[in-house]
Amino acid sequence: MFGKEVYVARRKALLERLQGERGIALFLGNVDAPAQYKDNCYKWRQDSNWIYFFGIDEPRFAATIDLETGEETVYADDFGIDDIIWMGPMPSVRSLAERAGVARTAPYDALGAALKGRQVHFLPASRYYNRIQLASLLGLTPDEVTSAGKGGCPKASEPLVRAVISLRLVKEPLEIASIDAACNLGYEMHTIARRGIRPGRIEQEIVGEMEGVTLAKGWGVSFPTILTQHGEIFHCHSHEMPIEPGKLMVIDAGAEANDHYASDFTRTYPTSGRFSQKQRDIYQTVYECNELAFSMIRPGIAYRDVHLAVAAHMLDNLRQLDLVRGDVDGMVTDGIAGLFMPHGLGHNLGLDVHDMEDLGENLVGYDAGQTRSPQLGLGSLRMARALVPGNVITDEPGIYFIPDLIRLWKREGTDKGRVNYDKLESYFDFGGIRLEDDVLVTADGARRLGAQRLPIAPDDIESVMKNEQL
Amino acid sequence: MFGKEVYVARRKALLERLQGERGIALFLGNVDAPAQYKDNCYKWRQDSNWIYFFGIDEPRFAATIDLETGEETVYADDFGIDDIIWMGPMPSVRSLAERAGVARTAPYDALGAALKGRQVHFLPASRYYNRIQLASLLGLTPDEVTSAGKGGCPKASEPLVRAVISLRLVKEPLEIASIDAACNLGYEMHTIARRGIRPGRIEQEIVGEMEGVTLAKGWGVSFPTILTQHGEIFHCHSHEMPIEPGKLMVIDAGAEANDHYASDFTRTYPTSGRFSQKQRDIYQTVYECNELAFSMIRPGIAYRDVHLAVAAHMLDNLRQLDLVRGDVDGMVTDGIAGLFMPHGLGHNLGLDVHDMEDLGENLVGYDAGQTRSPQLGLGSLRMARALVPGNVITDEPGIYFIPDLIRLWKREGTDKGRVNYDKLESYFDFGGIRLEDDVLVTADGARRLGAQRLPIAPDDIESVMKNEQL
Repeated sequence: MFGKEVYVARRKALLERLQGERGIALFLGNVDAPAQYKDNCYKWRQDSNWIYFFGIDEPRFAATIDLETGEETVYADDFGIDDIIWMGPMPSVRSLAERAGVARTAPYDALGAALKGRQVHFLPASRYYNRIQLASLLGLTPDEVTSAGKGGCPKASEPLVRAVISLRLVKEPLEIASIDAACNLGYEMHTIARRGIRPGRIEQEIVGEMEGVTLAKGWGVSFPTILTQHGEIFHCHSHEMPIEPGKLMVIDAGAEANDHYASDFTRTYPTSGRFSQKQRDIYQTVYECNELAFSMIRPGIAYRDVHLAVAAHMLDNLRQLDLVRGDVDGMVTDGIAGLFMPHGLGHNLGLDVHDMEDLGENLVGYDAGQTRSPQLGLGSLRMARALVPGNVITDEPGIYFIPDLIRLWKREGTDKGRVNYDKLESYFDFGGIRLEDDVLVTADGARRLGAQRLPIAPDDIESVMKNEQL
Repeated sequence: MFGKEVYVARRKALLERLQGERGIALFLGNVDAPAQYKDNCYKWRQDSNWIYFFGIDEPRFAATIDLETGEETVYADDFGIDDIIWMGPMPSVRSLAERAGVARTAPYDALGAALKGRQVHFLPASRYYNRIQLASLLGLTPDEVTSAGKGGCPKASEPLVRAVISLRLVKEPLEIASIDAACNLGYEMHTIARRGIRPGRIEQEIVGEMEGVTLAKGWGVSFPTILTQHGEIFHCHSHEMPIEPGKLMVIDAGAEANDHYASDFTRTYPTSGRFSQKQRDIYQTVYECNELAFSMIRPGIAYRDVHLAVAAHMLDNLRQLDLVRGDVDGMVTDGIAGLFMPHGLGHNLGLDVHDMEDLGENLVGYDAGQTRSPQLGLGSLRMARALVPGNVITDEPGIYFIPDLIRLWKREGTDKGRVNYDKLESYFDFGGIRLEDDVLVTADGARRLGAQRLPIAPDDIESVMKNEQL
């Protein structure tokens, strides 16, 4: 938890942005989430909006801010003797609220009465428990209080959502320091993973080694680790395969620090330590795309335009490999890059890995006047906005060969004659490549976060793996 | 997943136990549980009852068994192209259902129509999503479809609950082999942890090392690791303390194997490698209690009686230390042991660490005619039944010195003059000790599960720690 002045300042800024609104803003912290039965829960993780505005890292807290009077109240219950036996003494609710700079406290169950008859501004609920709780407090259904899709939650308060986004999008210096620390831990995870790649081992063994590091020094992983020789599957969480020689291993993983800020890196390694020429050609292209994006990141440029420049570069290289044919600009316009990179170039990063995603992807990632593309790939771009200093975003181009998708495009003629399917079919067992860094937008450009950058140039990958395997 | 004959046989046995019941039995698998926003989920974990009867380890599956006709249907949706891009190709629902021995499949959303107009037998929901889902399917509230307390869920089907419990309470040979494997992994975790204990290290470092092992070779931990120098706090999940010399470190942790069976062990170590005399006196008592319980475990004995025998032995030893005074039998009757061991001697273990807890603790752990005690300690006993071969239970006595609890008893005179508070107050910084093994009830006695037993005798602890620190 930061010093109380941090939370006081954030809530003050929030209230200023909501000047003129009537009613009361409601914030729900999380409760523990059952993994099996209800007393065997997953590792405790607080709600990110709650962490941002109140910082108290304990279950079953809520708070209100009266937008008309500015009065703030924290709702929670002090421990009784049963709680103390099972969970130990806890500081009083009053003292925890004080650490967040809130003077007024009330029992958790007083929340219902406090909302009665008031206009309630709430954020979409992510956790299923909070859907039940919000629905019950507000007389809505669980579906009505959560994000319905990329547009967010129609019943949530758009003024509150927009105010929260405007604050969390621009990271404070102490947040940047926290993300730097999470990146350093992510660097350690990835270094251990790279050193563990050896044909014959089981993928899961490396996952355990890398997650052990982040558990030893931080809260844990910032999302379930992706470590797979099927890089063409984006969120492959199965790790029971033995490592085979000659494959490409995609490792997309990050750490969550004890203060809950995240890192998120991806590297792709040749399982035998050296790329084949075919692998190197594609790898080189993804590497160039990553570098190109970083070179363009600066205040004022729309990240959507960086995505499109990456798409153009990618298609130009793929044309040289005779995998696509035709005019690059026309291919970009027609979304041909989406066949190879069906995801966006990057997303915001902060307390959440996809920062604030449940507030509504479009509200978080799109400026007024930007509309989301329906195309595969560009349509998945989570951060399109014109960049401002303090934004923290990922730079993660990738190229994948997804047999089912390629067959679908061929069948439906989606490529309008640009794709050389004959050659492409020889890539059906290729897998995929993704290369991801975390980037801060600075006053005059960009900085990759973390003290050191993970090796990325193809020659560097081969030489570092050669040294490590000695 | 086991062979399909396993699931077919279990469902056949279930149906036989429900002969004469009208209507339809409903089983809901889990969906992913959001950790942060809804697409950043905790590690996938299937519902244990679902695993037991259907085995399919994928999200968003449901099934019905018609109790009148025996017709079985699996409800789930095949992947579309978006799912394939993000999560990879999945075997068809039809082929997954076949692996579970079910021929009939239907889309997930056909579930509502299938239940319409039928009497629906359901199990209490544990996950919050399943509370929402069940409530919506059955026209009940989320609270009405989950366990309200130790008695279970009043609206759930008691015949179905009792039938499931009667099956899962008695482990099959292949389940016992799985628990043995989980115990072997738990042994490795605990061995690494013991070797990591060194004053000056941070507790969290050891947690990371031990959890890394179980992630490398299994699903992960079977519950959030307890590793604390405050052993008097039962579920202490904070690990940011440096290890101090002269303290006692309680480590209560277990592994979940890839087939989801659990292990659960506790050991308590002197952080400096040697016990003080005061620590050794208490440790020896807990050790004797653990051994006493194991020596009594055999078919026919009620585990409640084993708990009470342990309580008597504990009080006798504490009397010799002049911490309590008076007649042991009278102290047992008055529940004085609860001041030192405010939990039960053990619980069932299987697919859940507290096996089947959400089906209702009393239904799971108490025979007809056994009523649960209101006393502290004995009242927390989760397994009181007369033992039968195939039961898998934990043997986990402990002694704790909980200042808030001791002060409360003194204030309220709960001990009726038996406690020597003057001496007891010198134990306020002692912490606690717990020693736990996993035990199978065999045809003629008991077997500790796992290939090797973790060192437990006080001399063994000291000698093994001395060797490891060299």
